[in-house]
Amino acid sequence: MLDSFNEECAVFGIFNHPEAANMTYLGLYALQHRGQESAGIVASDGEELHLEVAMGLVADIFNADKLSLLPGRIAIGHTRYSTYGTSQLKNAQPIAIDYAHGSLALSHNGNLVNAEKLRRELEAGGSIFRSTMDSEVIVHLIARSERELLVDRIVEAVEQVRGAYSLAIMSPSELIAVRDPYGFRPLCLGKLRDAYVLASETCALDLIEAEYGRDVEPGEVLVINEDGLTSHFPFPGVQHAQCIFEFVYFSRPDSMIFNRSVHEVRKALGQRLAKEAYVGVDVVVPVPDSGVPAALGYAEESGTPFDLALIRNHYVGRTFIEPQQSIRHFGVKVKLNPIKRLLEGRRVVLIDDSIVRGTTSRKIVTMVRQAGAKEVHMRVSSPPITHPCFYGIDTPTREELIGSSHSVEETRKYITADSLEYLSLDGLLSTVHPDQNSYCRACFTGDYPVEFPLKERPQVELFEEAPQ
Amino acid sequence: MLDSFNEECAVFGIFNHPEAANMTYLGLYALQHRGQESAGIVASDGEELHLEVAMGLVADIFNADKLSLLPGRIAIGHTRYSTYGTSQLKNAQPIAIDYAHGSLALSHNGNLVNAEKLRRELEAGGSIFRSTMDSEVIVHLIARSERELLVDRIVEAVEQVRGAYSLAIMSPSELIAVRDPYGFRPLCLGKLRDAYVLASETCALDLIEAEYGRDVEPGEVLVINEDGLTSHFPFPGVQHAQCIFEFVYFSRPDSMIFNRSVHEVRKALGQRLAKEAYVGVDVVVPVPDSGVPAALGYAEESGTPFDLALIRNHYVGRTFIEPQQSIRHFGVKVKLNPIKRLLEGRRVVLIDDSIVRGTTSRKIVTMVRQAGAKEVHMRVSSPPITHPCFYGIDTPTREELIGSSHSVEETRKYITADSLEYLSLDGLLSTVHPDQNSYCRACFTGDYPVEFPLKERPQVELFEEAPQ
Amino acid sequence: MLDSFNEECAVFGIFNHPEAANMTYLGLYALQHRGQESAGIVASDGEELHLEVAMGLVADIFNADKLSLLPGRIAIGHTRYSTYGTSQLKNAQPIAIDYAHGSLALSHNGNLVNAEKLRRELEAGGSIFRSTMDSEVIVHLIARSERELLVDRIVEAVEQVRGAYSLAIMSPSELIAVRDPYGFRPLCLGKLRDAYVLASETCALDLIEAEYGRDVEPGEVLVINEDGLTSHFPFPGVQHAQCIFEFVYFSRPDSMIFNRSVHEVRKALGQRLAKEAYVGVDVVVPVPDSGVPAALGYAEESGTPFDLALIRNHYVGRTFIEPQQSIRHFGVKVKLNPIKRLLEGRRVVLIDDSIVRGTTSRKIVTMVRQAGAKEVHMRVSSPPITHPCFYGIDTPTREELIGSSHSVEETRKYITADSLEYLSLDGLLSTVHPDQNSYCRACFTGDYPVEFPLKERPQVELFEEAPQ
Amino acid sequence: MLDSFNEECAVFGIFNHPEAANMTYLGLYALQHRGQESAGIVASDGEELHLEVAMGLVADIFNADKLSLLPGRIAIGHTRYSTYGTSQLKNAQPIAIDYAHGSLALSHNGNLVNAEKLRRELEAGGSIFRSTMDSEVIVHLIARSERELLVDRIVEAVEQVRGAYSLAIMSPSELIAVRDPYGFRPLCLGKLRDAYVLASETCALDLIEAEYGRDVEPGEVLVINEDGLTSHFPFPGVQHAQCIFEFVYFSRPDSMIFNRSVHEVRKALGQRLAKEAYVGVDVVVPVPDSGVPAALGYAEESGTPFDLALIRNHYVGRTFIEPQQSIRHFGVKVKLNPIKRLLEGRRVVLIDDSIVRGTTSRKIVTMVRQAGAKEVHMRVSSPPITHPCFYGIDTPTREELIGSSHSVEETRKYITADSLEYLSLDGLLSTVHPDQNSYCRACFTGDYPVEFPLKERPQVELFEEAPQ
Repeated sequence: MLDSFNEECAVFGIFNHPEAANMTYLGLYALQHRGQESAGIVASDGEELHLEVAMGLVADIFNADKLSLLPGRIAIGHTRYSTYGTSQLKNAQPIAIDYAHGSLALSHNGNLVNAEKLRRELEAGGSIFRSTMDSEVIVHLIARSERELLVDRIVEAVEQVRGAYSLAIMSPSELIAVRDPYGFRPLCLGKLRDAYVLASETCALDLIEAEYGRDVEPGEVLVINEDGLTSHFPFPGVQHAQCIFEFVYFSRPDSMIFNRSVHEVRKALGQRLAKEAYVGVDVVVPVPDSGVPAALGYAEESGTPFDLALIRNHYVGRTFIEPQQSIRHFGVKVKLNPIKRLLEGRRVVLIDDSIVRGTTSRKIVTMVRQAGAKEVHMRVSSPPITHPCFYGIDTPTREELIGSSHSVEETRKYITADSLEYLSLDGLLSTVHPDQNSYCRACFTGDYPVEFPLKERPQVELFEEAPQ
Repeated sequence: MLDSFNEECAVFGIFNHPEAANMTYLGLYALQHRGQESAGIVASDGEELHLEVAMGLVADIFNADKLSLLPGRIAIGHTRYSTYGTSQLKNAQPIAIDYAHGSLALSHNGNLVNAEKLRRELEAGGSIFRSTMDSEVIVHLIARSERELLVDRIVEAVEQVRGAYSLAIMSPSELIAVRDPYGFRPLCLGKLRDAYVLASETCALDLIEAEYGRDVEPGEVLVINEDGLTSHFPFPGVQHAQCIFEFVYFSRPDSMIFNRSVHEVRKALGQRLAKEAYVGVDVVVPVPDSGVPAALGYAEESGTPFDLALIRNHYVGRTFIEPQQSIRHFGVKVKLNPIKRLLEGRRVVLIDDSIVRGTTSRKIVTMVRQAGAKEVHMRVSSPPITHPCFYGIDTPTREELIGSSHSVEETRKYITADSLEYLSLDGLLSTVHPDQNSYCRACFTGDYPVEFPLKERPQVELFEEAPQ
Repeated sequence: MLDSFNEECAVFGIFNHPEAANMTYLGLYALQHRGQESAGIVASDGEELHLEVAMGLVADIFNADKLSLLPGRIAIGHTRYSTYGTSQLKNAQPIAIDYAHGSLALSHNGNLVNAEKLRRELEAGGSIFRSTMDSEVIVHLIARSERELLVDRIVEAVEQVRGAYSLAIMSPSELIAVRDPYGFRPLCLGKLRDAYVLASETCALDLIEAEYGRDVEPGEVLVINEDGLTSHFPFPGVQHAQCIFEFVYFSRPDSMIFNRSVHEVRKALGQRLAKEAYVGVDVVVPVPDSGVPAALGYAEESGTPFDLALIRNHYVGRTFIEPQQSIRHFGVKVKLNPIKRLLEGRRVVLIDDSIVRGTTSRKIVTMVRQAGAKEVHMRVSSPPITHPCFYGIDTPTREELIGSSHSVEETRKYITADSLEYLSLDGLLSTVHPDQNSYCRACFTGDYPVEFPLKERPQVELFEEAPQ
Repeated sequence: MLDSFNEECAVFGIFNHPEAANMTYLGLYALQHRGQESAGIVASDGEELHLEVAMGLVADIFNADKLSLLPGRIAIGHTRYSTYGTSQLKNAQPIAIDYAHGSLALSHNGNLVNAEKLRRELEAGGSIFRSTMDSEVIVHLIARSERELLVDRIVEAVEQVRGAYSLAIMSPSELIAVRDPYGFRPLCLGKLRDAYVLASETCALDLIEAEYGRDVEPGEVLVINEDGLTSHFPFPGVQHAQCIFEFVYFSRPDSMIFNRSVHEVRKALGQRLAKEAYVGVDVVVPVPDSGVPAALGYAEESGTPFDLALIRNHYVGRTFIEPQQSIRHFGVKVKLNPIKRLLEGRRVVLIDDSIVRGTTSRKIVTMVRQAGAKEVHMRVSSPPITHPCFYGIDTPTREELIGSSHSVEETRKYITADSLEYLSLDGLLSTVHPDQNSYCRACFTGDYPVEFPLKERPQVELFEEAPQ
């Protein structure tokens, strides 16, 4: 999949660092791939919270002036995925509020399935909402709690929500991490000298040279304050359901997620794919960037030469405006260019991590064939996506998922490949972890670990096609 | 007073106009003098509310693109006074929320004296606050009300607040005006073909060519919807207390306020001033721009020649950055320049509308004397300001008001004038209205119509000196 | 005339000041009324020239960062009038170049009548042009000169050009002022402690607290360097032809121009106008801002009450975008608003400084009548403009000048006034100066002091109507 | 080498396309890697040239509004490398001028060695310069020519300059390509339906779907106008000297340069490197992005596993501001992150395309070792750089080139690698082309094909270190 703008969110937090906001800025910078719509930082000067949030990329939003408005030793941050069209500043995070017990800020990665119902109840009790984010529900529930301690108020709040949530919450004096009992989304804990650090992925720890400690556990509520760390497990035990798609596509390859190296897993998926779906060709070509590790594994396992025959233009950015409707078809060309000499007259297998709508795959197959390839085969290092995600990833509706509406052979015809094979579900699961049951695979099976409202909610069309 | 950036707020609303947001934009543009910090518009497309708000001037914030995001036939707007230093986007208005009964937006001009207490109570009940504005309290109170009709919820809310409030409130289908029972701040109603218009001052009606109808009455709750106008007077009758300072300084001279022409009142104040405090001089010179009408009146009444011997640079803007600390003393010079030929060797009386801290007056007197004036007398078309305002105007603390801490003679010495006289309170009140009792004159007397918390809250320093 | 965006240019220069660029910034700020399209500053660090130039207002272009790029003790600056449509950065001044004798920068106020011919000759000799400015011709002529001294090269250059030019020229170590032998455009010399200052108008000296010394004389070439001032008069004597329109409209009222106070002259013109064209009315109302002094004089002389019944919105700026074509007619309303109470039922005489196309006057007369005036008379403190200017002021073509194509009575009908009278040419000239011959009055008579190419060049339409 | 901001320039031109400026925009976008400081486009509407140029990235500078100011069927464009500090807008290209024969615009990639001498001569003849670019000399020489035809004037001009130049020149009706007789810098010709296209690299043709035709030959002057193509070879034959560093580092891998695929050459260099400098390790790791093809070749030839163990953050941009001096050491970390699991306990060979100062290599070796590598070897797919370039690439002075001042063993110690080997010059040359003599290899040998002034001119420090 041509990874671009269609991702979810990232959270970051740091406690007891003299440059808390600066570190958060760097951490968000490393997590930019998880969301490019907006970014924000809240810092505590010990008494008050200061918020800076804006639409755009981390490096464009924050400069020395902005960061100087964020003093103090505790901070949290957030980046949010990109939507298109109207301004959505009101939906940017962190959310910062005042309530009966003082000030509070929250960053959320994930998606709640009972947010609408809770929102209606809260509104019936007189609460007002300033955004359309499900995350705002959590803040209200915390504010409604009559418990004395912040951690207890948080627990009381999250006990009422269902779905996926990895949270970084701060008061003027505490930093609290929460991960839902299923552990849908990642969240890790690190140490930087005297400071504790929370991050969606370990690559954020690496950049600020923090040491990885451990993952925040599914169901864990972790309080970080002057007294150190205190861990709570207030939820009844449930079968974990960590998002397997983080391995397939979302996370950065240099991150450790759910205790495994993303790059290693992806490469192993490619190796398994070569075993399951070998095709005799002259060259293995990845769809960059996310297809590269699987292609390396595929090439290695199959003994086929590997080459980077599709070159990505990394200056593609949010700001690229195609000059006219008439030349709208540039699409994928603006991002990818084939190296003809590597493709001419050759049999090619393209390795991608996943196929969503199929339209991009179709364009890439066409591009490779026009560059002179004799045969163009497609191998995908995950099974067909047949069901939308309700736990934090923006997917098209079921009708738009080509894996839902089309058979593999129909998909092959649509994308105009000479052959098409997907990795098996068993291949995916057993490669990721011996304990297959601890992963959510709902997008491939429809087995949703947490029920959601019957009527499938309308999905924003953010997957795959929008950015082109 | 060198009028610049230290004002309060403006509200605007329009119902049933095909270009509601465009008209609101123009209306705010006409009301820009009441607040230059931020501006915002909310428009209803019949179902949803759309909000655009930003820091800065109306004409800089809104362009065709932004206005196109604000469709529909109902809109409200707001401009806010300028503060300095940290970003205050969270405090910009209108406030737009979702709550149990749908969507709501509110613009507020004024200041509540019991906001903190109400806020604590609301927070105790689980409400969360996103800003430090007293106005947010009103929104919460509306959301907490269990009444069925919006107008009833609004009434229930404002019955709990005390202080100054002129409000424009909108739902997706209604526009509601509210003016507190004292009528502190102005609010007028106009008609533009089939549309109803609300505005802080009539100059906004003039620009969009709406016809002035009447003032929203003190204590009136006016509902505008498809059925037309419905007027409610839910409050017990109290002695009106309209802000007399609107005449002295705030309002635009081309506005009608509280049923009187601002320019006419100011000119009459100047005439009265000439009767009370005549001084024989060669020329009457106004401190521009707000001192001009009083100076015209003074000159006319006293039979002294009038001249514009102080010229104002109208390119002075928020963005003017003085190049270096070392030349910080340019101050008033950047705004005003004397015409030496009109001042050399002459006896001059300067007419200003008010003196706040005295520092600007001191600079102007010095400037006029350096330009060659033989005598420099100062006459002020209102009494000494001795008490801060708690009803919507940002004034310095009592200690900083030179009229509070210094006698008239001490003030004269401080500003280095040859003589100094103020208009008497009776002169001010009887000139403005035969029914003197219907005006708030607390800033001149300390007789506050609505009690406020004992401990005088710290005031932001916005008056007079900050912009220079 | 509703003064806005249709002016000419300003030049500024300073020698031997430790904050030369800062002072130039302030000076340009004071001269902003002479041109709002672009602004630029060149500073010398003693060896190299540094240039910062951009489209826009002085206060928007320059901030601490930009000014810090302009070190040194010598600087010149320029502001340019506004054009519309395409970017014209290439036409912004100062012009900075390298040539055989090092570096040079030039600011020009005025217009050359033989620039095209000279340009063709220079191009024939191999010169290349980067702009469409006539000023660039002067720079090339200086570069072509084989004289040893800069002053001699400049003299050789300006001896070849004909027309209007007030110049500030700098090398890394000298500042040179030049004023054409006719003295069309103003240029004055001041002193600020050890620094010498050049400025188009004295108001720029006032802001930086420099002392006015004298005007640079018509035909004078004034060299300022480490050795002090050296004055040259290389041109044969000609009858001076200083622009009388600087008094009528262009200059700031607080400036001294051609040794006279602008405000004083304007007021005297109003007095003379009252003698020549008295009309019995209830109130004298100026068209702000440039009509105010004449109205004061008119009122004083005629004994008629004066009032500011037209209020100008000073937030009108370049950035004001009218929201839609459909409401384009807001035009003058965005800038001016009548105070109805001062006009209703009254006989009014409007005083304006000039009428160009007549369209704005027509709108204002209509506006005043709609506000309730019983009679609306117009008196103009200068004669009808019948001919375009070729010496530095952008005027419409002769056909568009209502004073050229219409009789006074026809004009009166067009602007819908009850009566219309202009000041006589003799009234204008004798008021401005006893030696009437030293002023250019070509726009009123067609007697052009310097010949220009027969075919009247097409004029950019910048006068009067464009900004509305 | 961590390719970032330190490159040279790109030129682009198109003739007879209805969206000439749009195509130029896309072409520059594809060539963005050759220069990020500024970008510009000149378009001809058949009569006049229109210029838009600004500092920054192509996609940030140009939007629909800007492009709409560039009408017509002929256009040229330019991107320029990045410098730091002061504004250099005056040095942005294309250069657009008016001269005796009308209008002209020019884009230049390369560097002239006799520009200073020519400039002095031109200035002595009265020419003025607006920039410090050597390219401006060419424009003056064209303007000085008395030949009738544009092509002849161009030939007369370039016959006088010496050094490296690939030019795209346009008049309102012609597009002319020029490549110096040595052919230092690339320039290719393509066809897009009825339009002819010029570009520095073929990747620009690919994006707009133009067909590659051929390279503009060394010494060719190619005129494109309504009559089609006309080719001139006005120069005496010289030994070609095409820049071999285009293959090593500069060009995009998906481009064809000098008739060879860049990616293919780089891979072959890696294969040759494996033959010349094999080291037994567990994994071959490229320094991304430019080291990737050589690493693939090295791994393939040596039979060693390849892996992407250094991940590059592609959100790194010009705008990234490190928050504080104290954390300045983040440097390379902001761009690269190692995947520890691929490095821990392993013997690693890093493959880079070149080493300039050595400081970045030192940081990367350290980073890999800290990630747990047991051994860290470095292999470089080109010889040590010992001499600066004078033909269009910004290199440090000779003293700063570690290959000049240090032996290979000293360099190894400095970068802290366990072993270090470079590709031999013969290995480089024979891999690139059987005819070794047609390539410039001065940076590796000091054998400069075109003499340059004895005193080595001071070099801007742009290579390698600056962007970190």
